[in-house]
Amino acid sequence: MRVFSSDTGGKFFLPYDRLILATGARSRKLGIPGEEARNIFTLKEMSDGLRIRNFIDRYNPRKAVIVGAGNISLEVAEALRDRGIETTLLYRGKFPYSGLEPELGPIIVKELEDRGVRYLGEVQPRFFETDGQKAQQLVTDQGVFSADLFFVGVGVIPNSEIAREAGIIVGKSGGIQVNSLMQTSEPNIWAAGDCCEKLHRVTGQPTLVPLGDVANKEGRVAGENAMGGHSEFHGIVGAACVKIFGLEIGMAGINEAQAKKMGFPVITQIVEGTSRAGVYPGASPTLLKIVADQSSGRLLGGNWIGRDGEARKINVLAVALHQGMTLEAISRLDLAYAPPFSPVWDPLLIAANLLKRKTGNRQ
Amino acid sequence: MRVFSSDTGGKFFLPYDRLILATGARSRKLGIPGEEARNIFTLKEMSDGLRIRNFIDRYNPRKAVIVGAGNISLEVAEALRDRGIETTLLYRGKFPYSGLEPELGPIIVKELEDRGVRYLGEVQPRFFETDGQKAQQLVTDQGVFSADLFFVGVGVIPNSEIAREAGIIVGKSGGIQVNSLMQTSEPNIWAAGDCCEKLHRVTGQPTLVPLGDVANKEGRVAGENAMGGHSEFHGIVGAACVKIFGLEIGMAGINEAQAKKMGFPVITQIVEGTSRAGVYPGASPTLLKIVADQSSGRLLGGNWIGRDGEARKINVLAVALHQGMTLEAISRLDLAYAPPFSPVWDPLLIAANLLKRKTGNRQ
Repeated sequence: MRVFSSDTGGKFFLPYDRLILATGARSRKLGIPGEEARNIFTLKEMSDGLRIRNFIDRYNPRKAVIVGAGNISLEVAEALRDRGIETTLLYRGKFPYSGLEPELGPIIVKELEDRGVRYLGEVQPRFFETDGQKAQQLVTDQGVFSADLFFVGVGVIPNSEIAREAGIIVGKSGGIQVNSLMQTSEPNIWAAGDCCEKLHRVTGQPTLVPLGDVANKEGRVAGENAMGGHSEFHGIVGAACVKIFGLEIGMAGINEAQAKKMGFPVITQIVEGTSRAGVYPGASPTLLKIVADQSSGRLLGGNWIGRDGEARKINVLAVALHQGMTLEAISRLDLAYAPPFSPVWDPLLIAANLLKRKTGNRQ
Repeated sequence: MRVFSSDTGGKFFLPYDRLILATGARSRKLGIPGEEARNIFTLKEMSDGLRIRNFIDRYNPRKAVIVGAGNISLEVAEALRDRGIETTLLYRGKFPYSGLEPELGPIIVKELEDRGVRYLGEVQPRFFETDGQKAQQLVTDQGVFSADLFFVGVGVIPNSEIAREAGIIVGKSGGIQVNSLMQTSEPNIWAAGDCCEKLHRVTGQPTLVPLGDVANKEGRVAGENAMGGHSEFHGIVGAACVKIFGLEIGMAGINEAQAKKMGFPVITQIVEGTSRAGVYPGASPTLLKIVADQSSGRLLGGNWIGRDGEARKINVLAVALHQGMTLEAISRLDLAYAPPFSPVWDPLLIAANLLKRKTGNRQ
């Protein structure tokens, strides 16, 4: 079988009855001068990772600067610190991880600093100064940062150009539009993964969510339908989790700022708790923030941060969001309790109980 | 204020407008000869725990025999091993923890044995041989077990006698009957906690669940209503978790045997997985078994066992059970994924996807 290859620049015509676009996404670039220097890395494919590792093995860099503070940048920061490399993280926002509630920000910054990562927020990169081959420093509006290795982790762009060129509808997000069958605007063409939009069940809007588990599920749906079967992908609720050194963060739904922007009458509740019953050895502090629609009482989202398996608790919110549960219903949940795993009153139950008093639909 | 005191044997008449019964439960006894010896312990109150600790501190026992293998017995076994005491656990069932699926049994037995606890199942205690003060051995149908300390953890009995004597309706379970307001059959008398029955939302039947978090929630409902407010307790789904040495077990709903006994057309699915993405350091094996109603596709229950925060995942099933979700709906959930926290396909999604094929309501 002949395959279209962009490496050779050649073009091949490959006939099809049914086509699945799984073109993925590519690393976003900063779009500033000097960015092509060979010690500036991004990370999307396995080969990118190997390239970074090879560079470290060969050149033994002592200082690194990371631009961006999402999943990938934070994981790269941890990996670089594990290699003993002095690491600075620069981010355009005030706190790391753009989708998170700002109340989590200081906790994350403290963890980064405790683990030897220097963090600077509200930084705008201007250009890299290079010697032609390698970048030597990054010039920003907040000063000049020199390093032996630079990493740029500022998100991904869907590879939807091939679809757009073929006349397939591409959404405002830049992702290929699909229905719940993962079918594009062309009936015999399906799409799956980071190249296409997903329905966000909380907002009802299409969104981009470049996550492996979502792509994996979509691929199965697209494949089954392309082969004449019937399967549907029913959208996402924005459930995700990330480990930042010893911190665990879970998130689901939309945050307060997003909810306000969408016009929801927003109420929020923060609960600080512990990961285990207070008397149980190993209990560590946790913080939960939930966001709800004041008029309907419906949960809109939440962030949960802690150290002791807390990230795994976010899926309770994910199911509640999937089901469109209200605070009243959430406050009635029977959740498993034992001293090694949670306080008697789960922080989510406390939050729902407190916040439901502010809603219009109290029973 | 004068308080009824059973310690003095005195009786006081305490007038009330509204009364809340929160009489709790007491440890069940084996009801065999010799059980009153002073080195045979149960554990329900803090004072029971202090009594055991004082006995250990004073007499330095070298061998212990535990009868029973529920939450309390298993936690006592761990505590005794921590004190270096040779511990044997005897249980009437084949595998520890009566409500669990039998597939978890060998995993738990292995953990007990790996941690130095000798386990024998299908044992019927006959009597204790005592020297008048202390028991020296427990005679069973499977042989004679000598020890310096004996522990009996075979469940609790609701303290519902006071209600029964007052003409309040007590259910077949032995717990005080209450409605969703925690009101007994006498309008001005409420009840809460281990002394009363709870509605099991999966079966629709009243049941006994002597757990602290449930009692705590019920107490608030009873108190609010007794003071003229309005609050409801909407029942339980059997969500619980337990730590057995390094093992974590979560359970929710009803098990296969219980479901069959209740006449559900039962289908089950076991999924063996890992706690993290396979490539991620620290991944450990997990086992999930779910039980569903074949005709409606509704989830009826599940057990989850593992080592690495797995018990915290059971609450996803707890919410699904609370909402009466079908396997089809569960299979569509967007759950948070990151390599340190789960495989790309969460075992619950795999289980629901596999099992929904056996139901009558596939989309």
